[in-house]
Amino acid sequence: MTLDRLTLVHALQDTATRLRIASIRMTTAAGSGHPTTCLSAADIVSTLFFSEMRFDPKHPRQVDNDRFVLSKGHAAPLLYAAWAEAGAVDPTELLALRQIGSDLEGHPTPRLPFVDVATGSLGQGLAAGVGMALNGRRIGSPHRTYVLMGDGEGMEGAVWEAATAAEFYRLDSLCAIIDVNGLGQSRATRWGHDLDVLGQQWRAFGWHAIAVDGHDIGALLDALAEARGTAGRPTILLARTFKGRGVSFVEGREGWHGVPFKPDQAVRAIAELEAQFVGGAGGAQTPAVRPPVVPEGRTDVIRPAALPPPSYRIGDEIATREAFGTALAKLGAADPRVVALDADVKNSTFSERFEKVCPDRFYQSFIAEQAMVGLAMGMASVGAIPFPSTFACFLTRAADFIRMAAISNLNVKLVGTHAGVSIGEDGPSQMGLEDLAMVRAEPNFTVLYPCDAVSAESLIAAAAAHVGPVYLRMSRPKTPVIYDAQEAFPIGGSKVLRASGGDVALVVAAGVTVFEALKAHDELKRQGVSIRVVDAYSVQPIDGATLRTAAAAAGGRVITVEDHFVNGGLGDAVAAALADAGVAVHRLAVTDIPRSGKAGQLMDRYGISAAHIVAAVQERVGKGA
Amino acid sequence: MTLDRLTLVHALQDTATRLRIASIRMTTAAGSGHPTTCLSAADIVSTLFFSEMRFDPKHPRQVDNDRFVLSKGHAAPLLYAAWAEAGAVDPTELLALRQIGSDLEGHPTPRLPFVDVATGSLGQGLAAGVGMALNGRRIGSPHRTYVLMGDGEGMEGAVWEAATAAEFYRLDSLCAIIDVNGLGQSRATRWGHDLDVLGQQWRAFGWHAIAVDGHDIGALLDALAEARGTAGRPTILLARTFKGRGVSFVEGREGWHGVPFKPDQAVRAIAELEAQFVGGAGGAQTPAVRPPVVPEGRTDVIRPAALPPPSYRIGDEIATREAFGTALAKLGAADPRVVALDADVKNSTFSERFEKVCPDRFYQSFIAEQAMVGLAMGMASVGAIPFPSTFACFLTRAADFIRMAAISNLNVKLVGTHAGVSIGEDGPSQMGLEDLAMVRAEPNFTVLYPCDAVSAESLIAAAAAHVGPVYLRMSRPKTPVIYDAQEAFPIGGSKVLRASGGDVALVVAAGVTVFEALKAHDELKRQGVSIRVVDAYSVQPIDGATLRTAAAAAGGRVITVEDHFVNGGLGDAVAAALADAGVAVHRLAVTDIPRSGKAGQLMDRYGISAAHIVAAVQERVGKGA
Repeated sequence: MTLDRLTLVHALQDTATRLRIASIRMTTAAGSGHPTTCLSAADIVSTLFFSEMRFDPKHPRQVDNDRFVLSKGHAAPLLYAAWAEAGAVDPTELLALRQIGSDLEGHPTPRLPFVDVATGSLGQGLAAGVGMALNGRRIGSPHRTYVLMGDGEGMEGAVWEAATAAEFYRLDSLCAIIDVNGLGQSRATRWGHDLDVLGQQWRAFGWHAIAVDGHDIGALLDALAEARGTAGRPTILLARTFKGRGVSFVEGREGWHGVPFKPDQAVRAIAELEAQFVGGAGGAQTPAVRPPVVPEGRTDVIRPAALPPPSYRIGDEIATREAFGTALAKLGAADPRVVALDADVKNSTFSERFEKVCPDRFYQSFIAEQAMVGLAMGMASVGAIPFPSTFACFLTRAADFIRMAAISNLNVKLVGTHAGVSIGEDGPSQMGLEDLAMVRAEPNFTVLYPCDAVSAESLIAAAAAHVGPVYLRMSRPKTPVIYDAQEAFPIGGSKVLRASGGDVALVVAAGVTVFEALKAHDELKRQGVSIRVVDAYSVQPIDGATLRTAAAAAGGRVITVEDHFVNGGLGDAVAAALADAGVAVHRLAVTDIPRSGKAGQLMDRYGISAAHIVAAVQERVGKGA
Repeated sequence: MTLDRLTLVHALQDTATRLRIASIRMTTAAGSGHPTTCLSAADIVSTLFFSEMRFDPKHPRQVDNDRFVLSKGHAAPLLYAAWAEAGAVDPTELLALRQIGSDLEGHPTPRLPFVDVATGSLGQGLAAGVGMALNGRRIGSPHRTYVLMGDGEGMEGAVWEAATAAEFYRLDSLCAIIDVNGLGQSRATRWGHDLDVLGQQWRAFGWHAIAVDGHDIGALLDALAEARGTAGRPTILLARTFKGRGVSFVEGREGWHGVPFKPDQAVRAIAELEAQFVGGAGGAQTPAVRPPVVPEGRTDVIRPAALPPPSYRIGDEIATREAFGTALAKLGAADPRVVALDADVKNSTFSERFEKVCPDRFYQSFIAEQAMVGLAMGMASVGAIPFPSTFACFLTRAADFIRMAAISNLNVKLVGTHAGVSIGEDGPSQMGLEDLAMVRAEPNFTVLYPCDAVSAESLIAAAAAHVGPVYLRMSRPKTPVIYDAQEAFPIGGSKVLRASGGDVALVVAAGVTVFEALKAHDELKRQGVSIRVVDAYSVQPIDGATLRTAAAAAGGRVITVEDHFVNGGLGDAVAAALADAGVAVHRLAVTDIPRSGKAGQLMDRYGISAAHIVAAVQERVGKGA
């Protein structure tokens, strides 16, 4: 080891010791948190931040910074301490950890400028890192991406989905590190310190795997250099560590997960750690952070071309899923930030139309929806506008990712096709019937549900222009175009499709049920009964003002009809919007587990066809049986 | 090859040909479906059903039958054809495939007696198979479990979670087969026919892996025998096949996924297949199914001992999660069907109390919630009463499994602890705030949410006794016992906790907010205002009758308060129950992405504390600011 190298190693060691001390102080002050988890990873983080990584601590969102994802989010104090050491956090703020007035939360969230994606639901960070690394390739940035995982989270299948995506895209700018401390929350991890098994698994998944002593700074430097020099495949460092490293009474012991030190324990622990400084009292100075490499000539200002209006004509029969594919391809051609992700259903969702136009911005996760959404989250966190799409029902596979996307308020545009029983013969496993409930639960999600090709295309563009998470729901059957190509569909709006002075009821529909409502309108009109019909294409936010006016005009009799289970969908959205006006809502929706059959048969059997709307109106106006 | 063996091989070949012909006839009659997927797997299914497996076709639910899970559910016609060949389905019924009057749905569901778990959401079958094999061990059955997967679905992370569980439990009674036909829906699979890579992956995950020609019956017989003879680890057969096998114009070709043959194509295809019979016209006779091995002396009648009433006293401070652990341990001691599953949080959920009492019926999935729930689904399908538990938020990782559990109407008892912002400092990633929306969307899920230890223990027992899927929501903070140990808590009930003749509003709460409602009641009483307070411990089904009566008695002013996001939870449940009575509901719930802080601070900040209830009541009775 040369003297310079030795100096560096000692400085990184002392920095690691400072990170350990800070992590203990923070968690003891908070009275909760995971100090021993921070202690196992401190040498890794010190080496990464203060020797390997290149970034600008004053501008953490600079896209050419190396990215760092703390997938093991419960080591948040370590992350905050490292950014404090780098100058991005006031050290006095650290002791406010977990307090309601501080953004230094129990697990990292993008409220902090140096956090791209929230972590704390284990097994998600790698997919985000893959997305960031792919985005670097898209924008021509030379940055590298680092993901620090725990060994316990390696059991999450999502990790292996992300691993496959990284291998498939030969992401040599990606380096993951597993802090193999051998201890989970409640017991030893499956593989403990057996790096051989872990190495076999990662190599079998196409990664370059390096086993390393995670407390040996020199070895970590060498391993990171080897990763940087590895072409054509991602690298994983399997870093053997000990939970609680550096504090004699907790190191390697079970029963200390998520347990902060009591004040007297903290004093003892810190005294032990201070004795470990190699550079005298307080330790050697932290090495300076290396600045990022910023390519010349990049312009960050994107001015997407305005899209031409849809080319559909009223009466054309086009499925909204097909209109989605067409619109996405147009959008991709106009805006280089727009990317598409598929889980091997591109020929059913029509996202293959985007692939034809923008093959370099089309990402295939194969049948791995968590990876698809997780990659999109990583991409969105660094400036892309990703549209991951699959059948609506299969987005539930990524529900926990979607939950975390909401926490991060990421700019992802989820598209679920084949919504509801109207898919027909494939049966319930292929029917998205709880997707609206899933996304509506997230308070910051926008939820859009077009009924025809014009509104579909318009809402795809609106989703791309909106900043924040969006869900778009598309249907399988062909439906007639009912809107003029010039019609505007603002988020939060709705369309009153039928209205007269004598309306006795309001029917609120969306997607395929709009056409059932229109049929019901015509049938009732033949009977001398007028109803108002609203297309609630913006399910969240819903157009409360229009609904309140329409409900009042229709005598307060409101019926909703939707191709979704009865709880959590359109009916609940309308009911909530009308609650403070004192209007209660009658909901037509699917209330049983459905079965196979033809679309029309199923819509009738499950109570959402025109006939059921007619009956509900009749019943409410006192003319029914 | 001996003569007998040759006869057997020929018979199995001809049976496979018949299965192919039937699959084509069925899908062509239906006008939809996946014939080429059936053709690739026909030799595997023929060999399994008519030589390897032991089962009683007249009693498909017999627990000692070998289990067969068609994880690649889109090959349903092949499954139906095999059971028809075995005598369990009337062959004339096959042509009703996918029609609304037939249980032969597009993808298999347990409406059919020979289907244990619904499939069609790829990557779930292996976890179910692991659960079935573990159940066999629990009940002392010698049966084996077979799971047939597609190669495309091997990309789902859930497969690797299940693979790890099978390895961890050394499940040598489990044999999985991958029909490696190399083609996904929209393109070639990631690994195509590269059995070497697949073999490395499965071996790295601890399985015995055998590469085999999936169209060579003799090789399949040998491989299955090798699997049967392999001790201490599960076996996977990597069966190299061709999609569309046996029909010249589709075999190995892209673009035929989910495409039925047109009638003229079907005629050509069937003519080609009929020419392949080795045993003359119509083919050699199908070998007889081998009967199961039924152990002597097993009694199927379980009479669980009645549980003693809870031992808590009014005023005791116990978290409902802790009461859950205690109750589960009692239940486990009383009923051998009760099993518990954990994802490495047993010391936070208190499921470790069950492990202490019933270590043999406690299953550890490590941090892999899809495996945890998937194993439970498999176990439930064959007679166990599984309680998988983790933090409520992390159950969203298994949302697609939960969706399929609903489709199968399985007897699983999901337990989510650490619900809501009342967990405090850990922050939003650890807060279950959309769990009620997720499970309430499923129309056959029972949803229970106790507020104290007595109701928690009682509802755990009620969940075990109820047949069907149940979700139980538990809280982190200690709460006082408010119910007498003898109190009964029927599913679908509620408790009126405060009522007087002059109530001006009804406050409906559940879980931690019950105590906020009680505090609000007392504060308002000091102001001379009376409110009615209901504990809606049964969120689904909800006690509509009591709510309607209470709402009427309280002047139609109804306020709900819950530690959950505003959409999809208790408020929507109450609103729906009161809608047809014309009562609209004002909902207090979490409407923003929350952050870290103390439980009390967060409940106040997010609008669900006693002070907010008081204000909402005052506003509604016209006394507020």
